[in-house]
Amino acid sequence: MHANTLNFSAGPGALPASVLAKTREAIVALPETGLSVLGMSHRSDWFLAILDEAERNIRDLLGLSERYAVTFLQGGSSLLFATVPMNFATPAFAPPEYVISGYWSARASAEAGRVSGHRIVWDGQRTGFRELPVLDRLDVDARAAYLHYVSNETIEGLQFSAPTGDLPVPLIADMSSDFLSKPLEVERFGMIYAHAQKNLGPTGVTVALFDREMLERIPSGMPHILDFRTQIAHGSNYNTPPVFAIYVLTLITRWLRDDIGGLTQMQYINEAKAARLYDLFDEMGDVVTVHARRPWRSRMNVAFTFGDARLDRAFLDLAETRGMSGLEGHRSLRGLRASLYNAVTPEAVEALCETVSEFALQRA
Amino acid sequence: MHANTLNFSAGPGALPASVLAKTREAIVALPETGLSVLGMSHRSDWFLAILDEAERNIRDLLGLSERYAVTFLQGGSSLLFATVPMNFATPAFAPPEYVISGYWSARASAEAGRVSGHRIVWDGQRTGFRELPVLDRLDVDARAAYLHYVSNETIEGLQFSAPTGDLPVPLIADMSSDFLSKPLEVERFGMIYAHAQKNLGPTGVTVALFDREMLERIPSGMPHILDFRTQIAHGSNYNTPPVFAIYVLTLITRWLRDDIGGLTQMQYINEAKAARLYDLFDEMGDVVTVHARRPWRSRMNVAFTFGDARLDRAFLDLAETRGMSGLEGHRSLRGLRASLYNAVTPEAVEALCETVSEFALQRA
Repeated sequence: MHANTLNFSAGPGALPASVLAKTREAIVALPETGLSVLGMSHRSDWFLAILDEAERNIRDLLGLSERYAVTFLQGGSSLLFATVPMNFATPAFAPPEYVISGYWSARASAEAGRVSGHRIVWDGQRTGFRELPVLDRLDVDARAAYLHYVSNETIEGLQFSAPTGDLPVPLIADMSSDFLSKPLEVERFGMIYAHAQKNLGPTGVTVALFDREMLERIPSGMPHILDFRTQIAHGSNYNTPPVFAIYVLTLITRWLRDDIGGLTQMQYINEAKAARLYDLFDEMGDVVTVHARRPWRSRMNVAFTFGDARLDRAFLDLAETRGMSGLEGHRSLRGLRASLYNAVTPEAVEALCETVSEFALQRA
Repeated sequence: MHANTLNFSAGPGALPASVLAKTREAIVALPETGLSVLGMSHRSDWFLAILDEAERNIRDLLGLSERYAVTFLQGGSSLLFATVPMNFATPAFAPPEYVISGYWSARASAEAGRVSGHRIVWDGQRTGFRELPVLDRLDVDARAAYLHYVSNETIEGLQFSAPTGDLPVPLIADMSSDFLSKPLEVERFGMIYAHAQKNLGPTGVTVALFDREMLERIPSGMPHILDFRTQIAHGSNYNTPPVFAIYVLTLITRWLRDDIGGLTQMQYINEAKAARLYDLFDEMGDVVTVHARRPWRSRMNVAFTFGDARLDRAFLDLAETRGMSGLEGHRSLRGLRASLYNAVTPEAVEALCETVSEFALQRA
């Protein structure tokens, strides 16, 4: 296997080999234009068709109705941590409610605290970010502007199940690390955003879906570029968008549709990949510790440790000799982490499991 | 010549062939890591070295002292149109002064008007954006937060000479379309910003230089991601940066240093390219009209017309048969436009001039 297919990085991470091959050729000459994708004007017919297709493919994959707007933004989740409250935490509502379930939702919450004020409705810090609440049982103020959560915590390896009950306020989710990894009932959300560098493409572009009713809440007088209505009104082409990142994202959506066969199929593959690794860890008993408690284990990021920094380092060294990369834990939690995003193949997970078993045997 | 070298697009535009060739290989395997550039973590040693090199190369090319901070941002000039006044137009100063010299400076000015209030110190609209003021003779309020201008207007084909006199307030310039096209006395500026997709790389990254004294003026309590100090404090790696765009930008800075030989050499080449085309147009008399008056003609973008839409269309058709692209004028001004950015070769300009001559002869 090529090193790219053994990249377990938490993001930017692995992309499908067929997408990399097409992208490689596009750097010198797009089949459609004969020009480098890097030299294509964002006003060209070619790019307008790419923008259309990117939106259409996302709509088709999710079965999304026209009630929702689809747009492509810059700045990543970190910019949205500020612009979500700037757009939606208006004085007409009580402060927005934030779930703190790990490192990234804590960052989102802190920025909302600066921008608009907010209320923390649930905080998993005291229990070490090993479990998650049930969203529709939270004590949410019905007058709140919205309820914000992060659907998958990449660092702690925690993942929410999709909400099933009704919530009294619009739900806004940062789905950066599990968007398009499984089917999704978008209709339960007021807004969803996801940067590309996990399951959708390279870094530099963020997908955002909006219930159009939410857009009517945006106050007037905002800086144009920070008002969510601006890019929606201009088909994500108000100013020069990240052409290359949107092109690769479009190739990924084609791959999800044509090569994988859609999001249900993708979900089956992702569930099986995660189950293979977690089952192995469970069989190994005390040799390995998974950070997340069982019901909240993420299918995208598996945070684990062999018990101490020396053992984890030894495992990384062995994995490296097998051509694997990206298995270091985040600097805030340390330990190890295997990210199993869409483009990580079952074969790669099998190779990882073999290396884990071999390591455990060496140490037994 | 390959179609890429005959790309006269106003941006995203031509990139050097050698940079495209290196980038193409990096899509599948970077020489340094064996992994796709698109799958490299922004926390990897490889990317930290790229960030360091990008900054060092820009410093070396400009001879920039440590008095200035260099940083890489997302969101393009349009985001900076909002964040410049958010950061610097504080109540401690009189409103910032804006020069309106064309389409882009008008956009910058309008956004400052929304964000902070401002004063328009010069407006070329009445005279059709065909000429420019002398910056150090403008009637600037000495208490103003700053004076903002756009150094090169891509649509109208107007370019400021570098300021030579002293100004009573910090000068802030959007240099998106001529940064690194010639040497620059950065010390005359409080802040300079330039998105990459003209002379520096693909779209998705913006370079910003700050006189560190300016940073002390930034008010507290801003959203972290919009406060200029945040990315500076985190070495442009506060949140996931556009890894690919910064990688290509780094290759461009190497090309400027090693292949071109530095900014003085680049300026000579750019001056000669523009002179070749303008001289031809001047020889042709009434057959062609250049939009900009002579003293303010841009070396980066030549906006011209053969007199009416039918003739301009006929020229575009001829140029297309010669493999040329990107010569349509902007939708706001129409007509024709040849952009002669760093990566457009003298050979490409020669080919364009031959086509112009041939077209004139056909019509004579």
